[in-house]
Amino acid sequence: MNTDAKFIVIEGLEGAGKTTAIQAVTRWLEQKSIEFVQTREPGGTPLAEQLRTLVKAQRDNEKVTAEAELLIMYASRVQLIENVIKPALAEGKWVVGDRHDLSSRAYQGGGRGISDELLNPIRSAVLQGFEPDLTLYLDIRPEVGLARASARGELDRIELEALTFFEKTRAKYQEIANASDNIITINAEQTIEEVQQSITLQLDQFFKS
Amino acid sequence: MNTDAKFIVIEGLEGAGKTTAIQAVTRWLEQKSIEFVQTREPGGTPLAEQLRTLVKAQRDNEKVTAEAELLIMYASRVQLIENVIKPALAEGKWVVGDRHDLSSRAYQGGGRGISDELLNPIRSAVLQGFEPDLTLYLDIRPEVGLARASARGELDRIELEALTFFEKTRAKYQEIANASDNIITINAEQTIEEVQQSITLQLDQFFKS
Ligand SMILES: Nc1ncnc2c1ncn2[C@@H]1O[C@H](COP(=O)(O)OP(=O)(O)OP(=O)(O)O)[C@@H](O)[C@H]1O
Ligand SMILES: Nc1ncnc2c1ncn2[C@@H]1O[C@H](COP(=O)(O)OP(=O)(O)OP(=O)(O)O)[C@@H](O)[C@H]1O
Ligand SMILES: [Mg+2]
Ligand SMILES: [Mg+2]
Repeated sequence: MNTDAKFIVIEGLEGAGKTTAIQAVTRWLEQKSIEFVQTREPGGTPLAEQLRTLVKAQRDNEKVTAEAELLIMYASRVQLIENVIKPALAEGKWVVGDRHDLSSRAYQGGGRGISDELLNPIRSAVLQGFEPDLTLYLDIRPEVGLARASARGELDRIELEALTFFEKTRAKYQEIANASDNIITINAEQTIEEVQQSITLQLDQFFKS
Repeated sequence: MNTDAKFIVIEGLEGAGKTTAIQAVTRWLEQKSIEFVQTREPGGTPLAEQLRTLVKAQRDNEKVTAEAELLIMYASRVQLIENVIKPALAEGKWVVGDRHDLSSRAYQGGGRGISDELLNPIRSAVLQGFEPDLTLYLDIRPEVGLARASARGELDRIELEALTFFEKTRAKYQEIANASDNIITINAEQTIEEVQQSITLQLDQFFKS
């Protein structure tokens, strides 16, 4: 394993601007001539993308349990980690992820209310300590993010949850971010230019040599 | 919860005769005028059937990790338990399952070699102690079962595993069955009539009032 290659993740609620913000990360990497691979979760391998489709589909005739949702997210994640992320890092390529494990802790743990007693054994069994080097958490009020996301198109099963679901998700994001040295919170209600400047600044600081 | 209704599961390797043997169970229930619901795993709800399709599909371009396979099986199982099995039992209907949790312990635990340290936290987090009242395990040599199953049609991704995979799976089935009071082993290499007679006898004994 090449220990120079890093795994950077962008996190945040729907419409926080993750996919937009990733451009700042990839530009930063390109300027340094660092090779990288981009991923998104759930998804990123053929099986994981099929799981993404299943978990996001609206279902009129079946309640999707919080536990099944959680297990599908981790099934997708383990495929991506083993088949894409670890091989890339081993080749010395950096990895830039649009969501990763923190999303499950925030959405399924916070939003759905799955307890740590249920979540942690699954997490640690699957991840075995694997984690991003740096997570940039784009913090936004749910109503602001959802307004951005719905302007963009149809909402999926999870995006159609009530506002309280996203408020609980955001609270969990904030709680974990505040307790973690390798998660940096960025105010996502700034302009796109300000968000991208913040990201570049944080990358410079975190990876300064 | 109506505590009279029972959950009976038939287990065993491919071609052991599970789907055939279930007829003996349902005939026994019908003769007692007991209402029941039949299930199969993985599957049994719309989402669970979609997961079944994904996990059985042959994949040329992607290795399916043992962990993802395990998590998909449990995602399917939790949907079935919460949306089908528990509601049926609560209404006083018996449930007859073609495979259940023992399959994951035997195939993913035994066959794939997933350790108990990884498997047990996921199992107990998902099942929370829920288990069949009685499991009938149809014991068969893999080569005999696979010969029966392949006479029936195309083999899926799991059925295409090497013989040693099924030998490890059978060994785990036997180990767990021997250690459990509510798992009864039936010699599945007998004729269909003998297997069905054994099943009827076991049901009479186990549920004698
Ligand atoms: N800082 C910003 N200010 C205003 N609009 C923004 C900002 N960042 C992104 N947007 C716009 O908001 C919309 C959602 O952004 P984006 O798709 O990047 O969010 P996302 O976090 O990736 O959402 P999702 O979780 O749905 O993938 C886009 O139309 C984007 O142009
Ligand atoms: N005791 C038996 N002796 C001989 N053939 C049998 C016996 N039981 C079942 N068969 C035949 O073996 C084939 C497989 O049986 P069945 O489909 O019931 O197995 P199964 O355990 O449900 O397999 P799978 O795991 O693939 O669903 C069928 O063609 C069936 O008729
Ligand atoms: Mg996005
Ligand atoms: Mg069958």
